[in-house]
Amino acid sequence: MEAIDVIIAKRDGGELTDEQIGWVVDAYTRGAVAEEQMAALSMAIVWRGMTRAETSAWTRAMLDSGERLDFTGLDRPTTDKHSTGGVGDKITLPLTPAVAACGAAVPQLSGRGLGHTGGTLDKLESIPGWRADLTPEGMRRQLGDVGGVVCAAGSGLAPADRKLYALRDVTGTVESIPLIAASIMSKKLAEGTASLVLDVKVGSGAFMKDIASARELAETMVAIGTDHGVRTRALLTAMDTPLGRRVGNALEVAEAVEVLSGGGPSDVVELTVELGREMLRAAGLQDARDPAEALRDGSAMDSWRRMIAAQGGDPDAPPPVAAEQRDILAPATGTLTRLDAYAVGVAAWRLGAGRARKEDPVSAGAGIELHAAPGEEIRAGRPLFTLHTDDPARLEHAAEVLAHAFAIDGPEDRLPLVIDRIG
Amino acid sequence: MEAIDVIIAKRDGGELTDEQIGWVVDAYTRGAVAEEQMAALSMAIVWRGMTRAETSAWTRAMLDSGERLDFTGLDRPTTDKHSTGGVGDKITLPLTPAVAACGAAVPQLSGRGLGHTGGTLDKLESIPGWRADLTPEGMRRQLGDVGGVVCAAGSGLAPADRKLYALRDVTGTVESIPLIAASIMSKKLAEGTASLVLDVKVGSGAFMKDIASARELAETMVAIGTDHGVRTRALLTAMDTPLGRRVGNALEVAEAVEVLSGGGPSDVVELTVELGREMLRAAGLQDARDPAEALRDGSAMDSWRRMIAAQGGDPDAPPPVAAEQRDILAPATGTLTRLDAYAVGVAAWRLGAGRARKEDPVSAGAGIELHAAPGEEIRAGRPLFTLHTDDPARLEHAAEVLAHAFAIDGPEDRLPLVIDRIG
Repeated sequence: MEAIDVIIAKRDGGELTDEQIGWVVDAYTRGAVAEEQMAALSMAIVWRGMTRAETSAWTRAMLDSGERLDFTGLDRPTTDKHSTGGVGDKITLPLTPAVAACGAAVPQLSGRGLGHTGGTLDKLESIPGWRADLTPEGMRRQLGDVGGVVCAAGSGLAPADRKLYALRDVTGTVESIPLIAASIMSKKLAEGTASLVLDVKVGSGAFMKDIASARELAETMVAIGTDHGVRTRALLTAMDTPLGRRVGNALEVAEAVEVLSGGGPSDVVELTVELGREMLRAAGLQDARDPAEALRDGSAMDSWRRMIAAQGGDPDAPPPVAAEQRDILAPATGTLTRLDAYAVGVAAWRLGAGRARKEDPVSAGAGIELHAAPGEEIRAGRPLFTLHTDDPARLEHAAEVLAHAFAIDGPEDRLPLVIDRIG
Repeated sequence: MEAIDVIIAKRDGGELTDEQIGWVVDAYTRGAVAEEQMAALSMAIVWRGMTRAETSAWTRAMLDSGERLDFTGLDRPTTDKHSTGGVGDKITLPLTPAVAACGAAVPQLSGRGLGHTGGTLDKLESIPGWRADLTPEGMRRQLGDVGGVVCAAGSGLAPADRKLYALRDVTGTVESIPLIAASIMSKKLAEGTASLVLDVKVGSGAFMKDIASARELAETMVAIGTDHGVRTRALLTAMDTPLGRRVGNALEVAEAVEVLSGGGPSDVVELTVELGREMLRAAGLQDARDPAEALRDGSAMDSWRRMIAAQGGDPDAPPPVAAEQRDILAPATGTLTRLDAYAVGVAAWRLGAGRARKEDPVSAGAGIELHAAPGEEIRAGRPLFTLHTDDPARLEHAAEVLAHAFAIDGPEDRLPLVIDRIG
């Protein structure tokens, strides 16, 4: 087979065969297909798209490029959640122990953040002592003992995806729904979960800015999961405004602990419960306890403490606090009608909570406290945001970004928290 | 500037600025833009196209990547012809000396063949002693002395085009009319001609299979030439059937010499004269002698002999003859109604006249004599083709290809030799 023939077939709008896809992904991973050839093929895919059969074959080829974890034989069914990423999205933190407390096993391989959205591992790494790296045996042991694990994906999982994503990132070929779906799903399928719930975010702070694109991504991922024998469903959820009241690594852990203590912001609680119910249903545990109950009765908190401790973390350690804080005051009295997720994400990133390049460090304490959510009343001169940073030079830039992030007494045009269900 | 922004702008259907194009072509040539980024950009251009302004800027950027020859100050105007390539297309050989004999200077930088179409340099190199390499000073001297020169483009001309073409060749991004036009025109503009006639071939043996695409290519190239201050026009001409009666290197030189002697096949004579007239008009020599007269009166032949001798060739040397000949007989009596240019080109290539890779050698003597052209009567059992090769093992394959290359007493559906004029 020749790479040029595969490129030309896709360029001319044809449907690639399973054999062509399996070959080209494998040959690229081995270095037998050049970077420039895969770049041209990726752009042709951005242009022409892929059918369901092609997308599933592409996912399978990436999955086959590495190992696939196997958690069959545990005494309870496995289920996981994946979010396409948002601002203040700490849902994995209360969700994993809550679902574990309701009887499922959650084997979540997670990532670090890049750009304006934070990464779950960055958040957990703000807990003193907590380690992201586990062996597959360590994962299995922890799943058996605790029921939940969130850890870093080893380099042996879907190496084709890692190589291809780095290429797409520099060649303007990220924006292809089939390639995005295949990338996400190859990693999720590699982690060996039997069922999966996708939280596909929509809005300014999300990768998908509109409902139609988010729906297409969700449907594509559900199809891939189904084609690979994993019970998969998706929720479309709002990311026009940040989730919860805190954005940043240690700040979000603290908010997750509030939720695990039975409190916390209502949107974080609601989404945790909704996603938890979907995960339990997908896992076949229709008669399981309700995750809302696990949050109320302390069993989710027990799971959390054991989960953190199992990975070396001290759940009682005081959270890291950034060196500097500054309040931003509300300029007027009225109803907060808009609080833009993207701008808040960018501001938190500027304050040190996120990274611009993979190799950058993140600050554990940096981030933003939001003192109001859309729909709430604010008063002139009272704090609207509190900025946290280790580097005071960054405050000015973040404040400038936030100055345009909100509206008072403007038109109200918010997305519902849960927009739709797919699968 | 960042390559990714240029790629995304084109991917999303935008028009690139002169600055973006100048930067990306220069940075790519210097190695500051990666091969995979240029591959993605090239595929985005195949997809989205380029406007006239973009295409001219792209051409200028490639031209600016190297030196540009300058033949101002000669005692006569410069003009050149470029053909997009065809089977049996030896027109440059009689045309250059004929136009030189009529008072213009023809500074033609030419190339070697690849695939089923032959290259002018390969043909001339079948003349014992003839050398393709000239310095710019040598070109100027020969233009002054003889009026015509056909030689190899030095590596200093449009190096961006060389690098980009090699990339496009392996990434399925050759098929973009703006990129094809910019590639051709950057080389032609670099040779420093003041006027230019393009012979855009149409049909099975040509790169452009249909009139609409050929017309678009011709119009694009005429626009580029015009935008760069070169008087440029184009003819669309037939390449559904081979030009003349001989295909192969020394075989085509022999046919060119027949034309220069006042004989030769009528289509070769007609196209030489038509293109010569266009060149003289483009050069501003409306009152020049007619190229048909230069062919009849021996002045074109005189120019040819001096042109060959000036580059070390012996115009009187016996042409190389291939080791083996085989006749293919006509299977029936009737009118030859189809003789497919592409199939004849492939058969000649198989016999050794062409190369599959740039570094392959070609055979000087290999090729095919065609004993009839479409519209002529053939008789069962008489030779229809004579194959020439140095390697008898190749005869069978060529004969197989030719078995499907013609039709007798079928429907007649030929293109006129000159289909249209543009510019």
